[in-house]
Order: sequence, then C-alpha cells, then structure tokens
Amino acid sequence: MQLGVIGLGRMGQIVVQRTLDAGHDVVAFDLSAEATAAAEERGADSADSIADLVEALDDEKRIWLMVPAGDAVDATLDDLEPHLDADDVVVDGGNSHFEDSTRRAERLDAAYLDCGTSGGPAGAEHGFSLMVGGPEWAYDELTPVFDAVATGPDGHDRMGPAGSGHYVKMVHNGVEYALMQAYGEGFELLHEGRYDLDMESVARTWNNGAVIRSWLLELCEEAFREEGSSLGTVADEVRGGSTGTWTVQEALEQEVPVPLIYAALGERFGSRSPKEGRFSRRLANRLRYGFGRHEVARREE
Amino acid sequence: MQLGVIGLGRMGQIVVQRTLDAGHDVVAFDLSAEATAAAEERGADSADSIADLVEALDDEKRIWLMVPAGDAVDATLDDLEPHLDADDVVVDGGNSHFEDSTRRAERLDAAYLDCGTSGGPAGAEHGFSLMVGGPEWAYDELTPVFDAVATGPDGHDRMGPAGSGHYVKMVHNGVEYALMQAYGEGFELLHEGRYDLDMESVARTWNNGAVIRSWLLELCEEAFREEGSSLGTVADEVRGGSTGTWTVQEALEQEVPVPLIYAALGERFGSRSPKEGRFSRRLANRLRYGFGRHEVARREE
Amino acid sequence: MQLGVIGLGRMGQIVVQRTLDAGHDVVAFDLSAEATAAAEERGADSADSIADLVEALDDEKRIWLMVPAGDAVDATLDDLEPHLDADDVVVDGGNSHFEDSTRRAERLDAAYLDCGTSGGPAGAEHGFSLMVGGPEWAYDELTPVFDAVATGPDGHDRMGPAGSGHYVKMVHNGVEYALMQAYGEGFELLHEGRYDLDMESVARTWNNGAVIRSWLLELCEEAFREEGSSLGTVADEVRGGSTGTWTVQEALEQEVPVPLIYAALGERFGSRSPKEGRFSRRLANRLRYGFGRHEVARREE
Amino acid sequence: MQLGVIGLGRMGQIVVQRTLDAGHDVVAFDLSAEATAAAEERGADSADSIADLVEALDDEKRIWLMVPAGDAVDATLDDLEPHLDADDVVVDGGNSHFEDSTRRAERLDAAYLDCGTSGGPAGAEHGFSLMVGGPEWAYDELTPVFDAVATGPDGHDRMGPAGSGHYVKMVHNGVEYALMQAYGEGFELLHEGRYDLDMESVARTWNNGAVIRSWLLELCEEAFREEGSSLGTVADEVRGGSTGTWTVQEALEQEVPVPLIYAALGERFGSRSPKEGRFSRRLANRLRYGFGRHEVARREE
Repeated sequence: MQLGVIGLGRMGQIVVQRTLDAGHDVVAFDLSAEATAAAEERGADSADSIADLVEALDDEKRIWLMVPAGDAVDATLDDLEPHLDADDVVVDGGNSHFEDSTRRAERLDAAYLDCGTSGGPAGAEHGFSLMVGGPEWAYDELTPVFDAVATGPDGHDRMGPAGSGHYVKMVHNGVEYALMQAYGEGFELLHEGRYDLDMESVARTWNNGAVIRSWLLELCEEAFREEGSSLGTVADEVRGGSTGTWTVQEALEQEVPVPLIYAALGERFGSRSPKEGRFSRRLANRLRYGFGRHEVARREE
Repeated sequence: MQLGVIGLGRMGQIVVQRTLDAGHDVVAFDLSAEATAAAEERGADSADSIADLVEALDDEKRIWLMVPAGDAVDATLDDLEPHLDADDVVVDGGNSHFEDSTRRAERLDAAYLDCGTSGGPAGAEHGFSLMVGGPEWAYDELTPVFDAVATGPDGHDRMGPAGSGHYVKMVHNGVEYALMQAYGEGFELLHEGRYDLDMESVARTWNNGAVIRSWLLELCEEAFREEGSSLGTVADEVRGGSTGTWTVQEALEQEVPVPLIYAALGERFGSRSPKEGRFSRRLANRLRYGFGRHEVARREE
Repeated sequence: MQLGVIGLGRMGQIVVQRTLDAGHDVVAFDLSAEATAAAEERGADSADSIADLVEALDDEKRIWLMVPAGDAVDATLDDLEPHLDADDVVVDGGNSHFEDSTRRAERLDAAYLDCGTSGGPAGAEHGFSLMVGGPEWAYDELTPVFDAVATGPDGHDRMGPAGSGHYVKMVHNGVEYALMQAYGEGFELLHEGRYDLDMESVARTWNNGAVIRSWLLELCEEAFREEGSSLGTVADEVRGGSTGTWTVQEALEQEVPVPLIYAALGERFGSRSPKEGRFSRRLANRLRYGFGRHEVARREE
Repeated sequence: MQLGVIGLGRMGQIVVQRTLDAGHDVVAFDLSAEATAAAEERGADSADSIADLVEALDDEKRIWLMVPAGDAVDATLDDLEPHLDADDVVVDGGNSHFEDSTRRAERLDAAYLDCGTSGGPAGAEHGFSLMVGGPEWAYDELTPVFDAVATGPDGHDRMGPAGSGHYVKMVHNGVEYALMQAYGEGFELLHEGRYDLDMESVARTWNNGAVIRSWLLELCEEAFREEGSSLGTVADEVRGGSTGTWTVQEALEQEVPVPLIYAALGERFGSRSPKEGRFSRRLANRLRYGFGRHEVARREE
C-alpha cells in the first residue's frame, strides 16, 4: 500500500524506513528540505509541500503525521483538511494530548487515528509499540502499515474510540516515570549503602533471570557501562514532564490516587528547583530554631 | 515538695525555675559547674556530684533527669542506682527511645517515669506538655511538680505503663515533621506561584481565625517577620531526624502506613544529599537519553 | 456603613450577624424567603429580590455574596450587573476558584473583591480569617465590614490583585488536608500501636503546651471526647476534595512538588474506592502468584 | 562437581534439577522424606540426615541451603558446623536478612556465600538470577554450579563481601514492590478512566516494543488473560512485605529517601487494615464536621 508521511524527524524517518522495508510505497514531506531529502535517499518519493504530497497519493489517502505535539499538528491539519474526505485516514503518531485528539477527530471529515508510539530510537530496529484509537475500519485499513512500523501484529492494537490511543500512551508514560524512579531508588540505596558495588554487574545480574528484569533495566545496565558505577558527570536534573503531568491531572479528574507516579513527577520538579533550594525545606530549617533553638543552617552568599 | 534535678542545660534550667516558682525545693546538679551555679542563682541548692545530690534529698527521693538521650541517661542511672530503693521515683524528661525507657524501668528498683516533654524554650514562660509513662502511684506522687513544669493540670497526663510517655512523644514528633512540611508546601506554592505575596501577612491572617491556625503557624509568621518573605539566607538543609526515623520504624513494625510523616522525613534526608545530587534523579536523567535520545544534563566539573 | 448581603446560608447569616453587631446596617436577600426572614429577625432589612436589594442600598453600593461557588455566583452577578457601576464594590466570600474570580473581576464594571473565608461555623463567635484580593481602594472601603466579620484587624488582609484572595484560600485548604492527615497518621499509629491509650487525653495533653498544638488538634480532642477513643461508628470515608484538587492542579502548573498535600488528597480518593477494592492492589496480589506462586487472596462473592 | 542440597521445597528442587541437568552430582536432603524422595527421582543421591549428607560428600564440601529464612538456617548450620572446616563452602540461597548472613559468615569456619535468588518458579526453565556475597575463592569454586542454577554466566555475579548478596537481593525486592505498584497505578487509572479498555490487549501491546516492557508486565498480561480485564474475584489484599520492610529500614539507616518503595509497601499495609477502616481517614471524616459541620459518614453496625 501507499503511505504519506508528514514530519521527518528521527521518529518520522523510522516510520518511513520500516514502511519501505515492508514493501510499501511512501511519499514523504517535511518543512526541512534536508529531512525530505533524507527520506528520499531511503527510497521514498518526496513532496515539496503538503498539497504536493496529497497530489501524489492515491484516491483513498493514508497519511501519517509525525510532527511535534501541539500547534504543529493543528497547523498541518489546517493545510490537509481541504484535500481530505471521508474515505481518507490520518494517523497522528505523536505525543498529543488525548483531548486534542478527540477534538481533531470530531473536526475532521477524514477518519482520524490517534496513535501512541513508544519505543524511541531503538524502535528503528525492532519496531514500536502502537496504541491506536479511532474508527475500526480505519484501523483495519492501516493494519499493513502498523504491522510494519510496530514490532509486528502483537505490537499494535486498537484500544477503542477516538482519543483512546493517546490516552493509553499518556498512562504508559506516567508508569514509565514511576518505573525509572523505582529503579533509581534501588540503585541510589545501593550506591549510598553499605557495600562498594559495581552497578553494571548488579544491573546485568538482575537482567538475567530476576523478577525485575526489563528493557529499562537494560538501559540502566548500558548507562552504568558507559558512565561508570557512579554515573560520572551526569547531573541531578531531570527534564521533561508533560505526559507525566497529564497523567496526574487525569488521575485527579478520575479521583484515582497515583502516589508513585506523582512522587516520580515531583522528583523531576524538585530536581529543577531554584538555586537557593526548596522553600518548604528552608522554612522547616527555620522553624526548628523557632521551637527548639536549633541552629539555622545558612546559605553562603 | 523537694526535687532533685540532674542535667541543667536549657531545658533543665526551665524545670528548675518553674519548680522553684511553684514553691518547691530543688537540689540541682550538672557535670558543668557553671550550669550548677546558674541553677543555684535561681534559688536551687547545688550539689557537687550525684552522690552529693542524693545525700541532700529526703528519704523518698524524687529525681528529674534532663540529660541528653542515649548513653548519658544510662551513665547517670549507673551512678544513681546504688542510692535508690523502691520508694524513690526517677523521671526521664529527655527524648529517650521508648524501648530504652522500658528497659530502664525494668532494671531499676526505683519507680521510673518516662516523660516526653514538648514545648521547647518557649515552655519557660507557659509551661510544657508532659506525656508520662510508668506506675500510677509514682505519677501521682510527682503531680505537684508536673503541675509546675507543665502548663498546669491539663498539660500533663499519665499515658500508660513504662515507655508509653516516650512513645507518645515520639509520635508527637513524627506528626511535627509532617505539620512543618505541610505548611512548607503551602508557603512554597505561594512563593513560587502566581502572585507576589507578603508571607508574614498570609501567616498572620491565617493565624487569626483560619482553620489551619496553630503554634507552628505562629512560628512561621515570626520566621517571615524576622527573615523576610523569601526567607533571606536560610538554607535548604533540614537537620535532625532521629525521632521522625523512630516513628517510621515503629510504624513499619505496626504495619501502619504513614506516608506524610515519611515524606517529611525524606525531605530532610533529601536536603542533605551528596553534592553531586540524588543518584535516582541522575539515573533518570541518563535513562531519558537511553530510550529517547534526550540530551543528558551534565554537571560542570 | 451599609452592606447588602446575598446568600443567607449558615455562613451568610454569620456575616449578617457580625456586621450588625458592629453597628452597621445590613440589607439581606436569599432565594429562600425563610432564610431572608431569619436575617430580618437578626435586625437586617430584608429584600424580595436582587433588584429590591440594590434599590435599598445607598449610591455607593457594597454587596457581599455568600452563595455556593460555581454557577450561583455567575447567576447572581448576571442579575446584579445592570445595577452596578464603577463606584460599587462586590465581595465574593465563597470558595470560588481563583481563575473564576479573575474572570469575574475583569467582566464587572464594579470593583470585585475575592475574599477567601476560613473558620467555619465557629467563626460566628470569634470571627473569620479573610484573605482578600482586588483593588486597594475597594479593600480600604470595606475595611469596617472586614473588621467586623473577621476576628478583627489582624484577621483580614489584602493579599494582592484580583484572584489572590481565593488563591491563598485554595492553598490554605490544601494545607488543611495535609494537617488533618498528619494528625490522623499520628493517632492511627497510637491507636494500632503498643499501648492502650486514651486519645482524648493525648490530644488534650498535646494541646496544652506541645509544639503541635493547634485549632485542628482541639477539634481532634473534641472528636475523641464525643465519639470515644476508637471513634465509634465514624466511617472510613472522607468526602469533599475540590479545593485540595485545585491546589494540586495549580502545583502541577507551577511545577512545585506537594507530596503531603497530594497524599492527603489521595487518601480521600482511596477512601471512596469501588467496593471490590483498589485495582492496583488487586493486580499486585495477583502478580505475587505470577512470580512466586503465592496464593491469591480472593473476594467472597 | 558434587553439590549437597539441603531444603527441597519448590526452589530447592529446581536447584537440584538444574545442577543435575548440567552434569553435576547432587546429594539431597530434606526433613520431609517425601521431598527427599522427589529429589532422588530426579537423579540425586539422597541422604537421611545432615550427618548422612555430609558423609556422602567429598572432602571439599560444597553445600547449598534452600531452607526458609530465619531460624531454619541457624538450625541447619548448627547441625552442619561440626562437620565443616575452612576448605568447605556453604551457600545460603534463601531470602535471609543480610545482617544474619554477615553474622553467620563470621561464625562459620567454612566459607559462607549468601546468595540472593530471584526468578521464582519460572526459573526452573530459564534459570535464576543469583546475587552472591562472600569470599572470592569460594565464589570461584562454586561457579560451575552457579552457571547451572542461574540463566548462565551472566545470571550470577559476586557482589562483594559477606552479606552483599542478600543486601542486593533485598533492594531488588524493594524495587519489585515499587514496580508492581507502578504498573498497578497505570492499570487502575485505565480501569477507572474514560475508556472501556481490554487490559490484556493494553499489556500485550506494551510488551511488544514499548519503553515499559518487562517480565512483570508479561505477568500482568497473563493475569488479565486468566482473570479477565477486571481481575474477577481477585481481592484487594496484598500479603507479604518483609523484604520491602527491610529495604525501607535500611534506607532509613542510610538516610536515603525511597518514597516509591515506601508508598508501595504502605499500600500492602493499607490493604490489610482493620475492618472498620483506616483510623486516619475516620478522624479526617469527623474533623470535617468539626470545622465545617459537614455531615459525618457513619458505618452501619
């Protein structure tokens, strides 16, 4: 089959490559001519504009968006919309908020599939996990492409109606935050604890047969191998946080307590606190003087 | 009545003063001659040694220990023991672990009262809160002194048998950690939040009629008045932690979840982390590269 | 001075009473004729409608709304708006979200004061704590009324511009959740712990001189006195949660971690979980069979 | 080589089988004659007593204990000790506390290897992960057996001196608690949330290529396949908790905050609370009446 791909960053290129490798045709476009050229080198047909891409596609258009979540999706849809009708299918493979996806699905005449995509750059080789929301017929139509982009038939499924794909991906990321922090707590305790341990050896031993083995733990093993047992110059600053924040917001809405996900998100916030430190702790420090005349620790200025 | 007081630091001096003010006699001893002299100036009889102090007391000896929790209590009891019999009463007014108190009560021929003392230096004026464990007759005997040292009859009570006084005091301190951190979170959000607020005004307004008014909030108000709305040079470092740790340990033993007390204690630990930062966050930072090729934040060296 | 009061529930009646007691005039209106009559009995002039109330007020109108947060405030403002001009002042004394208050302040020609009110029914006697946001001149104009409704001049202050009053009140409530849960953890540990304690005695002893003494702890003391040391039939179900949810949402927005407030809110959610229990725990139960062949605990059906 | 195995429960039988399968000789003993007979059927030589087992072993004895952690280990060592000298090696493959292991290593003339074993019954097929502490020469001597019992050479390593093997295993289990709860939170949110989802499909899709794929997630997938998307009659009661408790205790000792591990442990405690519910929440329920006259939810009796 034939797939149009809009957005040719690292992830978009993987979509192009895996779709081509499976024997399908790809028409590719990116605002950057360089990125478009890179896709062409992989064997895709290139387009100069969205109009040009649409032109190059068959009547029943199948288009995969891999553009940054947010305004870029809406802007792309603005450009696409005049060229689409009810037979066409648009896939949003980015990290959009599920409520945006629901809104977009309602607005568009074409079928809209929100497709949570997990696996990162490593997906190039093994394929992604794809969580898809939207109309069943559209999901069925795209199945050959999903088979190609995912790890195979087990690596994608239709979660439910519009929005459900990005919803499940959002929760996936919330869990991801908590898993990272859980491993982090374990390794922190081992690092500060009683024994002088080789963290790579710990991670490798765990990855071979232990209950907590996982892909994230393989990444821990790799991190210790590359950075050393004490993580060298890696800073105590965890960036990102939007999908974790969405997860907690939705959990508030649903009145479901998610203390681990919340704690993991809070560690990110805490790692980026103002340079004079956390206000809450500074107040606690001062209060200990207030009730117990304990000496106040002071910052050097 | 007549009270021997051993240990004449800040808290011991308050015990001496309030007991004298209530019209009782005090014999005072401290390893520091200076501290003993200070008690003498307040109107106490002074003793040169524990043997000397015991000599100066009536037959039915009532002795208040206000020495640092730990070995100092055992050392003092070692010295006292030969001079005591079953008619005598020893009060431990310090922050001893309840299991030490139970052990000491069993070991001693004399009655032993473990007396959790709260209120800090401010208690000089208004009196302390005293949580007492041990035999009822001994508690009754000491009531005149407890009335004097506490805020009055409502400021002390017998909690139960040996150990229960220090047990209730331990839990008091666990709650104290959580309250401090709870106020801290509120003020931190106000400080980092949308409005430029005068924290002293906030605290004062709350202290006058709001649901969350408290003595700790009065100390917050005082802190903001003295340090300014941004707490000036007060550092993000919260010292101490032993009674909070005991509380969590006991809660583990009893299988009672205390997430707020634990989180407050964890903030103290976190405020004293190694200078390269929290290992768990450093690992999370690095893992984000592992699965998403997000740039790794690095420490400058 | 003269004050119009709209909304005469429990809190509105207290506003009426305290304003009258301070020697001011009140014109009162509620959708319930009964409530209006009750205010009249207190000495207020009554009005039959909002139009009637506005009519009865002097040229420079000062009107206090004490209606439920949400649509009722907007509906009341819809009715008031045609009668107001830039010299007039409207106070919203309810628990509105600060963003609603900011929007309303912008929409209205009259000055708008958002006034967070804390103290509950007990405020009838001692006065409330009032956290006020909005234009300085309007706050100054209303000061005599604030003096009367609050505990006095220290019981109210202008926090800042529009929205800041309800913002500070929102954070107040978040802290309140955490304080309640912190005391709860302490008493739970004492209740499940090693000694058979009289909780009222514990609370009373703490309230007299201990560091953690507070109004909430006085309410604990009252609760144990009235319900008994084991709280009798009081159920494990904590209702409410909107202002705590707002606090956490705002903290997410500001990227400020509030683990204690979050944990306290989570306990409320958890206390209202489905009757088959928490899904997360049920999965953990089952997973223990998966990796360790531990017997699965089953619900009786 | 030749290995004595004492303790022939589920895990001990796997040790016997995998050691035999690798071509080594096994002498097996269990207090239960039935269990000993089962090992004999697998091809092991059987012993009637510990003395008998020791008799059957070569001069340089290598003995693997797979008995329940606690007194059973000490009792077995009491029986073994007279028969051992400095050339012999004892492996404790159970879940002993690391401080017990350190103590036992000191007490014994023979070399003592504390060997944390993870993988559960599933290890029968694929082998375990073995975290070993103790003298290097003893670890080297046992390597052929470790290769057989573990997944292979990568599935075991010497962590460090005595105690370090069980230390790393203890932390492994703490992390395990947190991972289980992290997945649980995600699935709970999906279960209570906006969409009607097939949990097995979610887990399977995640397990194929997603960042959070893991063995525990495969067990989730299996659980949903076998119990259904709503987990059927699986109860909200999570048993166990000792190794998680040890982890938190050690983290307190090391002053390392482990909020996720603690929260996961707390959920276990919470899932086993008294039938009238959590005291902390009951108090919060009652306090809401105290300050706001909110109706008190009551238990039916």
